[in-house]
Order: sequence, then C-alpha cells, then structure tokens
Amino acid sequence: MSDDRAPSPVRLQMRRAAGQPEPSPALQELYRGFERELLVPLWTEIGELMPLEPTSKATPHLWRWRHLMALAERAGQIVPLGRGGERRAIALANPSLGGKPYATPTLWAAIQYLMPGEDAPEHRHTQHAFRFVVEGEGVWTVVNGDAIRMSRGDFLPQAGWNWHAHHNAARAPMAWIDGLDIPFAYYTESQFFEFGRDTLDAAEKATPERSRSERLWGYPGLRPAAQAAQNGQNGRLAATPLLAYRWADTDRALAEQLALEAEGCAATLSPGHAAVRFTNPTTGGDALPTLRAEMHRLRAGARSRSRREVGSSVFQVFDGSGTVSVGEQRWSVARGDLFVVPSWQPLSMRADGAEGGPTLDLFRFGDAPIFEALHAHRVQEQGD
Amino acid sequence: MSDDRAPSPVRLQMRRAAGQPEPSPALQELYRGFERELLVPLWTEIGELMPLEPTSKATPHLWRWRHLMALAERAGQIVPLGRGGERRAIALANPSLGGKPYATPTLWAAIQYLMPGEDAPEHRHTQHAFRFVVEGEGVWTVVNGDAIRMSRGDFLPQAGWNWHAHHNAARAPMAWIDGLDIPFAYYTESQFFEFGRDTLDAAEKATPERSRSERLWGYPGLRPAAQAAQNGQNGRLAATPLLAYRWADTDRALAEQLALEAEGCAATLSPGHAAVRFTNPTTGGDALPTLRAEMHRLRAGARSRSRREVGSSVFQVFDGSGTVSVGEQRWSVARGDLFVVPSWQPLSMRADGAEGGPTLDLFRFGDAPIFEALHAHRVQEQGD
Amino acid sequence: MSDDRAPSPVRLQMRRAAGQPEPSPALQELYRGFERELLVPLWTEIGELMPLEPTSKATPHLWRWRHLMALAERAGQIVPLGRGGERRAIALANPSLGGKPYATPTLWAAIQYLMPGEDAPEHRHTQHAFRFVVEGEGVWTVVNGDAIRMSRGDFLPQAGWNWHAHHNAARAPMAWIDGLDIPFAYYTESQFFEFGRDTLDAAEKATPERSRSERLWGYPGLRPAAQAAQNGQNGRLAATPLLAYRWADTDRALAEQLALEAEGCAATLSPGHAAVRFTNPTTGGDALPTLRAEMHRLRAGARSRSRREVGSSVFQVFDGSGTVSVGEQRWSVARGDLFVVPSWQPLSMRADGAEGGPTLDLFRFGDAPIFEALHAHRVQEQGD
Amino acid sequence: MSDDRAPSPVRLQMRRAAGQPEPSPALQELYRGFERELLVPLWTEIGELMPLEPTSKATPHLWRWRHLMALAERAGQIVPLGRGGERRAIALANPSLGGKPYATPTLWAAIQYLMPGEDAPEHRHTQHAFRFVVEGEGVWTVVNGDAIRMSRGDFLPQAGWNWHAHHNAARAPMAWIDGLDIPFAYYTESQFFEFGRDTLDAAEKATPERSRSERLWGYPGLRPAAQAAQNGQNGRLAATPLLAYRWADTDRALAEQLALEAEGCAATLSPGHAAVRFTNPTTGGDALPTLRAEMHRLRAGARSRSRREVGSSVFQVFDGSGTVSVGEQRWSVARGDLFVVPSWQPLSMRADGAEGGPTLDLFRFGDAPIFEALHAHRVQEQGD
Repeated sequence: MSDDRAPSPVRLQMRRAAGQPEPSPALQELYRGFERELLVPLWTEIGELMPLEPTSKATPHLWRWRHLMALAERAGQIVPLGRGGERRAIALANPSLGGKPYATPTLWAAIQYLMPGEDAPEHRHTQHAFRFVVEGEGVWTVVNGDAIRMSRGDFLPQAGWNWHAHHNAARAPMAWIDGLDIPFAYYTESQFFEFGRDTLDAAEKATPERSRSERLWGYPGLRPAAQAAQNGQNGRLAATPLLAYRWADTDRALAEQLALEAEGCAATLSPGHAAVRFTNPTTGGDALPTLRAEMHRLRAGARSRSRREVGSSVFQVFDGSGTVSVGEQRWSVARGDLFVVPSWQPLSMRADGAEGGPTLDLFRFGDAPIFEALHAHRVQEQGD
Repeated sequence: MSDDRAPSPVRLQMRRAAGQPEPSPALQELYRGFERELLVPLWTEIGELMPLEPTSKATPHLWRWRHLMALAERAGQIVPLGRGGERRAIALANPSLGGKPYATPTLWAAIQYLMPGEDAPEHRHTQHAFRFVVEGEGVWTVVNGDAIRMSRGDFLPQAGWNWHAHHNAARAPMAWIDGLDIPFAYYTESQFFEFGRDTLDAAEKATPERSRSERLWGYPGLRPAAQAAQNGQNGRLAATPLLAYRWADTDRALAEQLALEAEGCAATLSPGHAAVRFTNPTTGGDALPTLRAEMHRLRAGARSRSRREVGSSVFQVFDGSGTVSVGEQRWSVARGDLFVVPSWQPLSMRADGAEGGPTLDLFRFGDAPIFEALHAHRVQEQGD
Repeated sequence: MSDDRAPSPVRLQMRRAAGQPEPSPALQELYRGFERELLVPLWTEIGELMPLEPTSKATPHLWRWRHLMALAERAGQIVPLGRGGERRAIALANPSLGGKPYATPTLWAAIQYLMPGEDAPEHRHTQHAFRFVVEGEGVWTVVNGDAIRMSRGDFLPQAGWNWHAHHNAARAPMAWIDGLDIPFAYYTESQFFEFGRDTLDAAEKATPERSRSERLWGYPGLRPAAQAAQNGQNGRLAATPLLAYRWADTDRALAEQLALEAEGCAATLSPGHAAVRFTNPTTGGDALPTLRAEMHRLRAGARSRSRREVGSSVFQVFDGSGTVSVGEQRWSVARGDLFVVPSWQPLSMRADGAEGGPTLDLFRFGDAPIFEALHAHRVQEQGD
Repeated sequence: MSDDRAPSPVRLQMRRAAGQPEPSPALQELYRGFERELLVPLWTEIGELMPLEPTSKATPHLWRWRHLMALAERAGQIVPLGRGGERRAIALANPSLGGKPYATPTLWAAIQYLMPGEDAPEHRHTQHAFRFVVEGEGVWTVVNGDAIRMSRGDFLPQAGWNWHAHHNAARAPMAWIDGLDIPFAYYTESQFFEFGRDTLDAAEKATPERSRSERLWGYPGLRPAAQAAQNGQNGRLAATPLLAYRWADTDRALAEQLALEAEGCAATLSPGHAAVRFTNPTTGGDALPTLRAEMHRLRAGARSRSRREVGSSVFQVFDGSGTVSVGEQRWSVARGDLFVVPSWQPLSMRADGAEGGPTLDLFRFGDAPIFEALHAHRVQEQGD
C-alpha cells in the first residue's frame, strides 16, 4: 500500500483501562496496522458496543403541543407544498441524536399541516406510516384511491408501498401526527420510494364519512369471505387492510375496560389503567409490521405501573392532564404534548384529579413488533 | 388359538372383478387365514376405500323449518329439561348415515328449544359449538359466567371446554340452531365432557344487552392490551374470545359489499353474491378451530357460482327465498329451512325476485378449518 | 309427505333412564314425528355421543409377525399384482371395527409383499403414507421418478399426491409395513386418487444407494438454498421433502440419547427410554401432516412411564423383546409384532433382560398431528 | 425558554433546491423556531431520508486474509486475553462507516485468535453469534457446558443469551471468523450482556469429537422426542439447538447439488452455482433469528447470476479462487479473503479455472432474516 493514499477512516487510541492491554510501542504499532487494514479490535470497544443493558442514545424529551402548532401554522403560511418536498411535515428531533429528525433511533414522529384546499401529492414508500389526529378534521387521506376521513381520535394506518395523498376539503387548516419507521428503514437500508401523480382525480377528492376499507373491514370479527379466499398464507396480510380505527370505538373500548374493572373483571393493564392495541384483523397482530400503536386511559388519580421494555415509544397526550416520568425526567403534560420513551427507560404515568374526574388519555406508538418478530423483546414491570 | 373362540369379525368374499385375483380354493383358504388373523387385503377394498374423489356417504337433504319448529314446540311441552339429558336439542339426521344424529359425517346441527324460565344446566365439553338465531329472542347463554344475549341474526360461538348454560329470561319459548363438531370428535375419539352446576347464580341470570366479551372484544381491529400481553403464542388464542357477532354488523357488512360492488369495487365472491366470515380476532382465522361459519347474501335475482369443496356444510336460510341445487337435488327454500352440502358435491344458489327485491340471506357452517389445518382442502369453482 | 315412501332410516326408542323423559303415548308420538322428519333428540344419545373421555371403539390388539409373514408369503404365491388391485397389501383389521381394514378409527397399517422382479403400478392419492422396513431389502420405491432404496430400519415417508410405484430389484421377496391415514381420509371424505403409468421407465428401475431426495436433503440442518428461495410460505412445505430416514442415523440417535442420559444429561423421555421423531426439515414438525412417526428404544430392563393421549397409535417391534400393556391387555412381544393403542388407553412398555442386554426397539406411528393442528391434543403421563 | 441555555443540537440550512421553499427572512425565522423546539422539517431531509432505493452508507470492500492473519498473530503475541476485553477479536471496519467496527450497518465480522492453552472467559449476550473456521483446529467453544470442536469448514452458531467460552486445547494458535448482529443490536438498543465465570471447569475442557448438541440433534430430519414434548410453541425454538454444522456434510451437500444438476435435476441456484443454508431443525428457518448463513460453491469456470437484495452480507472465500464484483468494485479473491456486499448492491461471482478444476467455495452471512420477519425483503436477480 502506498503512503500517499487518503488517511484511514479508522483511528485507534491506546487506553489504560480495565480489560485493555498495556500501552506500549509494540501495541502502538499494532494499532497502526489495524488502522491501515481497516480493523478495530473488540477490546477497545466492548464496553460501548455491548453494554450490560440497553443504554439509549436517545434522551427522554417532551415537546409542547402549543409550540409545535404555532410553528406548524407559521409553516402553513410561508412554506408551499408540492412535489419534491412532498409533505409539510415537521419532525421531532431527539436532542441527543445529532440533529437528525428522529424522535428515537427507530421512530419518526412529525406534525403535518395542510392548508384549506391543499393537496399533498401522491407517492408511496416501503416505510410504514400512520396518522393520528389529536384535534381538527377536514382532511381526507387517499390510499390507493380510497378517501379516508381523518377526525379527532382516529388512528389511520398506512402500510408500506401503498399509494397515498392527502386532501384538505375544509375551510380551515388541519394538523395531525405522522408516525413512521423512517429511521429504522434508513439505518437498515431497506427502503424504496416512488413518486405518484401530482394531483388527485375528482373522484378521489370525495369526502365520504366512511372509507371503502371501513365498509369492507370495519366490523368486529368479520372478514369479507372473498378476501379470505383470494390470498395465500391463509388470507393473512402483512399489514392491516382496515385504514381507519375510529375514536368512537376506541373510546368505548377504553371506557368498558374501566367499567369491567369496576365490576370486578380482569380487563385493564393494572388498576385504573386501560389500554387497547390497534391490530391487523387478518392476523390479530400489530396493525403494521414494524409499529405498535395503542391508546391508553388512566382513570383520574390513577397511576400506571412503572415499566420498561426493549425498544422505544412516542406518546401523545390525547386528553386530560397528568404527570409522566421517563427515566430521570418528569413532566406535567396536557393535551397534544408529545414525549419519547427511549429503550429500557422506565415509564410511569399518573392522571391528575380525583376519582370521577376526567381521564388521562394517551396515544402511544413504538417499535416493539420489530423485537417481537426477532425474539428480542423484553419487558420489566414494577412488581416483576 | 382355540377353535371355540367367537367367530372372527372379519368376513371376506372372493369377487371376480377388476384388479381382483381369480377365485380358487387356494384363495379361499388364504382368505380364511386372513379372517383368522384379523386381516383384510387392500385389493378387495381399494375401490371403496380410495375412490377417485370424495363420494360422500351423506345425502343432500332439506329440512323444512316449519316442521322442525312444530316438533320442537311439542317437545317443549312434553320433554322436561335437566341433568343427564342436558339440552332439549333435536338433531338433523342425514338420511344415509344410519339413523345417527349427524347432519354430515363431521357436523352436528340441531334445533334447541327453551321454555320460558327454563335453564339448561351447566356443562363443558371439548367439542366446539355455536348458536345461530333465525328468529326470536329472550334467551341468554352463560359462558364462564358471562351472560350473552341471543337475538335474531346473531352468531354465538362457544369454543370447547368453556362452561356454559342457557337461561330463558322471556315469557315466550325460544328456538335456535346449535352447530357442533360432535360427529368429528366422536369419530376421532378426542372428546371430553364435564358436568357443571345444576343451577346458575342469580348474578349469572342477568340479561345485559352486551356481554362482557363484547365489551372487551367487540370493536373492529381493537384488542385489549392486557390480553395481548398475558398470553403466550403472541397472544393468539385457539378460538375466538368474542362470544357474540351481532346481526347489525353482519347485515351492514353484507349490504356494503353489494354497495361496493355496485360502485365498481371488488368486494363480493361473485356478482351479486356477498359473504362474510366469522373470525377469531386474535388470529384472523376461523372463530373455532374445527368450524367455519359465514353469512351469505344473494342480491334478488342473482345466482352464485357453482362450487364444490372438500368437506361438508350445513346452510340455514335466514331471510328471503330462492332455489338451491346440491348435487342432483334442487329445492325451493324459505326462511329457516336447513340443508346439507356433502363433501365435494357442487352447490349453487339463486335468489328469487327481480333486481331491487329482497335478498336471499343464508347462514352457513362447515368443517373447512379441519382440512385447511391439514393441507387437505380443495375447492373447485365454476370457471376454474 | 306420502305414507308409501320408504321406511325412515331413523328409529328411536323410549328408554327409562337418567336424563330421559318419561315414556308416554305423547312421547311415542313425538318420536314418530322425529323419525318422519329425520331428526334425533340429543337426550337419547348424549351418553354415547359425548362421553366423559374418549372411549375408543377400537380394541387393543396384537398381531404376530410370524403369522402375518406366513400369510403374506402365501399371498405372494397366489395373488397376482396389477392395476386395479394396485398393491399386495394386507391390512390389520381391528377386531371391534366391524371387519373394516382399520387398525384404529383413523389409521391404516398393512404388510405389503413384493415378489422378485415385480412392480407395483404407479398411482397417487392424497392420503399420506409411509413405509417402514422391519426386515429385508431389495425393493426401491419410486416417487416422482426418484428411486428410493428400502432397507431394514428405514422410515420412508410418502406425502400425499406424489406419484409412486414400487420395484423389487432383488432375487428374494420382500415385505414391509405401510402406514396411511386412509380411515381418516375416508371418514372425512377428503381423498383423491389418480392412476399413473402401468410400468416404470428403465431409468426409474435404477437401484441407487442414495435417492435424489437424500442427496439434496439428507444433512443435519442443511437446506438447499435454491429450494428455500423458490417456495412461498418462507419455504415451508406441507410435508417432508426427505424421502428416506436411514436406520444408521436413527440407531445412532437412540444410542446417543441413552449414552447422554448415562452421562447425566437430559435426553430421554424417561430413564432408559429414548425416542426420536421423524420430522419435516422445512418446518421441524411431523414428517407428514396427519401422521406422527417415531422410533423408541428401551434399555434392557427399563420400563416406560405409563402414558395415554388423545388419538391412536400402531407400534411395531423392531428389535428385542419385552412386555407391553395397553389398557387391560398385556402381551409379550418380539420382533415384527404389531399392536394398536386406541385413543386415551394407557400404554406402558418394559424391555426384557438385565442391564447391558439388548434393547427393545419399537417403531410407532399415530395420528397426533391431527389433534395438535386442531388444538385438541391431550396427554396424561404417570406422575402428572 | 431562556437564551442562555446550551446551543440547540438542531441546525437547519435554507437550500434552494427542488421541493424546497424559497429562502427568505421569514423562512429563516421559522427555521430558527424549529431549532429552538428541536424540530426538523421533512422537506429539507426527504431526499436523503427516503431515497428511491437503498443507497448504502457502507462501501464494498475487500480484506485480504494474509493481512488479517499477520495482524492477528501479532496481537496474539502482545495483547493478553482476559476479563474486560473478553476476546482477542479484530473486527472489519467498513471504510465509510466512520471508523466503527461494523462490516456493514448491521453486521459485525471479526477474526478471533486464541493462543495455545488460552481460555476466552465465559459470558453471554443477547446478540446472536457464530464462528466459521477457514483454517486450523484445536479450539473448543464451550456453550452452556457443552464443548464443541471447531475445525476447518465448520459453521458453529451461538444463539443469544447462552453462556459461552473458548478453549484452545492444541499446541498451535488458532484463528477463526466471528459473525454477530452487534451493530444491529447496538443501533436498535436491544442488547443485554452478562459476565460469567472466569475459568472453565476441568470437565468443560474436554475435547470430544462430537458435542452433546450434535449427539442429540445432528441427524437429518430426526428430533429428540423428549425435546418436542417439552417446549411450547409446538417445540419450535427461536434459534437452532444444533451447535455445529460440520464441513463433511456441507461439502457433500454442495457436491451433490452439482452432481444432480449434471444429471438434469433442479438442485442449484443457477447453472454451476450450488448453495446450502444453515437452518434451525425445529423450524426449518434460519439458524439464528437475525443472521442467515450459507455456503456457496461455484463450479470451476462458472459464473453466478447477478443479484441484489435488501440487506447486507459478508463473504469469506473458503477455497479456490475467482473474481467477484460488488457494485462498482471488482476483485480477484483467494482463500480467506473477506468482502462485504452492502444493501441493494449487485453481486456477481465467477470461479477461476476451466471445467473440472477446483471449485470456488464461499461462506456467506447476512441479515436477511430481519427483513423477511418484517416483510421488507426484496431480491432482484439478473433475468427477473
């Protein structure tokens, strides 16, 4: 090898630390040999690379909804929307992830904002996505030509590689939350993207109350027999064909869990803590292959068990107020606020108020399906 | 071996037929040797045992609802209900299955009848069961203490080994259809049965509009997070935890399939033929491990494709009228009528009336999950 | 309905028994009504139909190999082999199954016999099959053109719907055991059959030591990458692509289990009782969708735990001698002897001899995969 | 928020590019607002974050075995082995991954070197690992107390969370390749690590020819019945229980694929290109949940199809020589050389020599199971 080549990207330092060899000229020479050959010894890296348990690079952090909304509104006024930029989406950037638009190492969370009459152009990508609406209405997201109403409390999954666009059919702007596995797909270098049409057909700008996907799939325990017959894999689909999970159902399911608990039935995660998971009706598993989404409700005054798990999550307060602890952090939270729970950091939540007061409702999404699929999931709960 | 033992249960005859050896004294002696040793040669049996395709021992047959109901009412008057007899259930006996209470070789179908105030005593069994209600209301079936209302159009699955009883809380008698895999479990010698309490608690005689199972599970695509966390197998349950599939949902799902078809979307099995399957929300598969249940709707004047499949089915007309062909049989059918479709016999159905008239709605159950689980299912449709 | 029709196939009798209504003229009339309408009440049948636990119609029974062989040899002399009769196979007929060629309600077990130079003609069927060789050699079974040597101790699975023929390339006759799910397929009416060519090609009469299937699949833990890439379902096949499991492997695996046990490692079913299961390398499950096959070895003097399970089995003594108890029966057994274990009948086995003597080796096949697939399997062992 | 807080980690720049808003003071102010609130807009990032197809950060690169070995030998002389450093392993650092010890974004590949008599201390971690031996022998890896011989050509998987140590029982040093999913586990923050005992028991320093795992599991298609009975999930294990895949089997399987191809049977990936995959005998899937391992063989003079897939791989030449192209790179390769194939970069390989000459054998491992589990795998082959 010549001496005039570019400097090696590998730089090794001798350290006098536990498990490290003694610094010496011979070692120095060995390390320079490693550098030349693009090699790194394990013994200088193991403490960092193979910690005793997950020590997340991400930091617990809270974003206030009122600040997000103010900036999104301002962006609505001055940032045009169109091909290339694709979406007026503003992503949470975890303070310890180098300024990248990553809420956690695997998760993307953004506020998206659409002005009256605006269309976000059609595209598709293999990253899995969903929308969650904390307030407002008037936008329809159009998935493979199926126009899907978006209203407060709705969870709207968007599995990878489906064409989609958004259309604001109302007189007011609308904001919502987008969640995707962009950082995971980016890191693992597994993503594809394709541009679609710049404008929607008139028919696709329809504003039906119920999407076709809901008309086909939106019934508890019922499947279209035609679909079950067509697909291989016993009709199992990789992601949910149901494109809207409506708040009325979610709200009722949570209320019933608390009511059943009051009647003495096991229904909640812990006393006063109800939760539902959004699932793929063709498998019973998570709605999206890489993303878990749930809605949680704490009875006024109730406290969740402290819990940590492999993988990270983002929460958005949907309603009510309370106090949240993540690792060493502790925040008072209110409607719309978003916070991240890094991997293996303990989370506990408490709803404000006294019994009978308003509940604390939180939307949560996370990357647990990745770890479950790979047999790498672990959960530890208070009392375990 | 002694000569005075009981005559051998094996009896062989020499036949002069294709593939058979020539009759001779030596062959005669060989056959007597087989009989003594309890042996049967393949060559005398193969045509019967290994036919070119399924040739069902069962016969296509139709039972008229008005005759069933008249006999059930009479039984209500003179046959008491209690421990030992367990249920006032009257089963369809396929005319070519030797007088056994088998609708088909694998399926049990019965009309069950409960007088006002009566309780059918608690028991449990590994046979999987469901109830389907073609008319009436007022009975609650109590499954592990959960009281489940039974009303017209409801499908009420009852997975094996759950305690259950029935309670008529109304002033009128009520009849419904029971479907089970009794013949299959009997033939394969895989069943267990246990008697429970003779009477229900007062609390279990409650008559809630919605059962606990529905309050927990009766939402499209939503699962209780607590359940998903507790179970192994990624929260998959062998049978559905949802114990009532209500007519309002089924009806709407069928109506929407026909409406979507009219809008140009693929939603139906074939033009004018809608169908939904009752599924286990924890797997997306059939509600019960051995039984498939579906509701079909034919638009007035529409005709289904002719179809045959491995395994047998029982249909009950839920509403409307039409004509049905099964193998060589052909019947006009009306509300409540039941008919069986033996294995591999072609079925086609036609709804009476002209476009815009009332639909023909049929409930169907069958044994397809057995064959799918064993990779033995085959379907052949007109046009394949 | 006219009075002159054929007598009803349903015949009901009034019985004065627990859970039965009081005999009376009214009841008599009701029963005649049931008969006319082809109906059977549950209350007269439930004790038989829904027993507390499986009470098999089959009887534990033992067939002596020397008697089977003598009859098979005689059949070889006087019964020709050809199209129509298809195979010179002589089936075990359980003494309480009505003279049908059923070892148990679900299982077929037969001795097949092929004279020197004979070919059994090609056919295929959806029934799953295997061959097991207790003694002899010289026959090749030809599956989809792949010639597979059959030798003592080999297990040769034959999944449904593959073309197959047999060819005796030796100078001596050869006998072996065939196991199939014929009774199950017959009862459930799910079988298809197709005749193939009457004679094999010259190339197919090759007598290779190792079949193509073994050359591709016969390595522990290795799969052909080409196969994994081609198939859907992640390369999982319904049945094993490996068509011969050789005695040398089976023998060594059993010997090693006993040796490991002696070294203090958990390897055996119970002390002195080793067993291996023949599995599908693409799934790790049973080699055939409906049939489980295993080889068992008891150390000299060792006794198995008493065990009963849902579903039935057939055993053949491969080597050694011992004592076997099935339900109320008890037999001394020796090489080649076959016995059946009906559903839920306890089985225990003891090897003759003192420590260090010859082992008792038994081949076993049964229908457990059916019950496991349907979540209906139960096992009870001594000490549970 | 105060002005004196630490500078924001987010830094945004206005760019005049496709899909970007016009630079303006208002936009500037908006961007400063984003920075303060830890937000990043999609429109500045989308081209990088969501490319049209995977554009790997990793670079195709080749490491020469002779250079690796020389450095490993030198390390053997001057770097002691013990607790803290844990292993004398030297990892490939992809030149475009910032000097980190990552062969690709998800894969770790290292040469490990053990001096005569040395022990690498016991530990366990959730990262999945394997060893592959390109030359030498004399080391036993001890997994949960089971001593496993390591010899040329062997593949030795080491599923996560099993205790393991290494012991050189020979008089010569030995080197081998370690492969792990360390970068993936690190990035996704899902790893656990635990220190074990510093020294092995005398019994664990045994040097058996065959490990206990092989004695239990090393037979084609055979499973210990005891294991199948004990485990839930129908006996499926997350990772392989077979801890050594021996070269004799691998070699024969590859030779047979080429021989079968020559006989006209479909057995190879493409003409002259044989390959086997190392699989988990309890599932038929990959031996490890996150890592695929295969051995490839090209007939002398043969050329593989060009192929690219989602996910990355590392290859090591096991024997022979040839030419390899990865993306824009092209190398002549010889025994021991290692090269990486980044995600979606086309790979083609050609064996030197003319027909009948020595084959080119390559060991390959990659991260495909991650993408298959998440339904994100894509493959594109020449001719597709």
